[in-house]
Amino acid sequence: MNAYQKLINSTNKGSYLSVGLDPVLDRLPKHYQKNTDSIIDFCKKIVDSTQEYAAAYKINFAFFEQFGLEGFAILKELSNYIPHDILKIADAKRGDIGNTSKAYAKSIFDELDYDAITLSPYMGFDSIQPFLEYKDKLSIILALTSNKGSADFQRLISDGKPIYKHVLETFRTWTNYNSIAYVVGATHPQELEEIRELLGKETLLLIPGIGAQGGDLKSVLKANNKGLVLINSSRNIIYSSSGEDFAEAAKSSAKLLFEDINSNF
Amino acid sequence: MNAYQKLINSTNKGSYLSVGLDPVLDRLPKHYQKNTDSIIDFCKKIVDSTQEYAAAYKINFAFFEQFGLEGFAILKELSNYIPHDILKIADAKRGDIGNTSKAYAKSIFDELDYDAITLSPYMGFDSIQPFLEYKDKLSIILALTSNKGSADFQRLISDGKPIYKHVLETFRTWTNYNSIAYVVGATHPQELEEIRELLGKETLLLIPGIGAQGGDLKSVLKANNKGLVLINSSRNIIYSSSGEDFAEAAKSSAKLLFEDINSNF
Repeated sequence: MNAYQKLINSTNKGSYLSVGLDPVLDRLPKHYQKNTDSIIDFCKKIVDSTQEYAAAYKINFAFFEQFGLEGFAILKELSNYIPHDILKIADAKRGDIGNTSKAYAKSIFDELDYDAITLSPYMGFDSIQPFLEYKDKLSIILALTSNKGSADFQRLISDGKPIYKHVLETFRTWTNYNSIAYVVGATHPQELEEIRELLGKETLLLIPGIGAQGGDLKSVLKANNKGLVLINSSRNIIYSSSGEDFAEAAKSSAKLLFEDINSNF
Repeated sequence: MNAYQKLINSTNKGSYLSVGLDPVLDRLPKHYQKNTDSIIDFCKKIVDSTQEYAAAYKINFAFFEQFGLEGFAILKELSNYIPHDILKIADAKRGDIGNTSKAYAKSIFDELDYDAITLSPYMGFDSIQPFLEYKDKLSIILALTSNKGSADFQRLISDGKPIYKHVLETFRTWTNYNSIAYVVGATHPQELEEIRELLGKETLLLIPGIGAQGGDLKSVLKANNKGLVLINSSRNIIYSSSGEDFAEAAKSSAKLLFEDINSNF
């Protein structure tokens, strides 16, 4: 099943929830030892308990790469473990000159078998192109991110438009829309509304920043105007309890957000 | 020895050469089998033969990550193998929100023990800050890259200045100049001259794009105006011969470029 089909299947079932996996040793439930065996066990149990509500899992590569070789092995193990009908997003923010991006695409799409990747657009069109050539995968390009630093360059105005709009317009010229999506942070509902209007309802927006980063779900969904969307939540789901009931607690949090998204969609 | 000291020691000996390691199976010398054992053997022999002339090795992470777990293991093995007085640059183009960048920094600087990393500035100041907190390491931020796509966003004009100048000016406000460097492609000598004037001579510029990508060494060194610089060459050194003499041939190419840099500095 290709990436876009997985997405459509999930949204047809009413799921727009992306569960973010970015585990840190210090926040694991207390009964775990602080090592990488615990990380993989924790992640698998979160996947087991939340998959009923998840349209996607967003795996934040940094949090695994920080464990070196063992962390890299978990990236592969998780990719194999996540049910095959749920979208697997490599949140890796890659992007480089053409032949280098080609090697990154090979790493993420072929070697690790993820369905989608997040990409930084700073190096321009030819840095993204090698990813777009995988028609059965999704390339999710940073447009307007959720952090404070999004104001530093993404919002600079050139030729009457902020840089993030230049990014959107540059990649929109591609005909295969299915394979291109964008990151827009939940912390910018007003801009989200304009972006949704510009792109139409069929382009996927991946929206992080609900909860811990301060984004408001209702404002986000209103601005999204029923467009194709994935609302990501990481810490608010995976750290719902520090006790042995953590997986059940994560399930409850996922269910709550799933329902909250649906009732406000 | 910290990153900046390694750099200064090398430049004091007259070496401004960065040897780029981005091996692909199809271009390995013909006697090698096409597997990861060959990749590590090839890279080590290139390091052995070129270290006399190298101020730095720039390891292009994509080319190793594309081999999955085995490739990741080579990144660590190479980090251990490169002589301790030569700068090791992780050419990884990372950059994300604060807590994620902190995990990437841990991966590259602590776990893999590289001296320097290349970073994409799209997500702004707070995405780079966690790397800058490693005072003994170098953060090399993309300014104006060597590829065609550098025109797409980096050259857009905002408030009378191209975006890459906004990048330079944003990060210049930091007081610890030693830990910040920039990537400027060899394909833009005119802009390089302006950038060098803006930053002064003591800020390191990492300059890729000589040779295969079309940059001209003499124009670059003239524009650089004797500032602190690393001139990177990858393919033109490591693929100097496809025969069993490849290491000797790489040494000759490195020596030639080393001398060429010095006679035009």
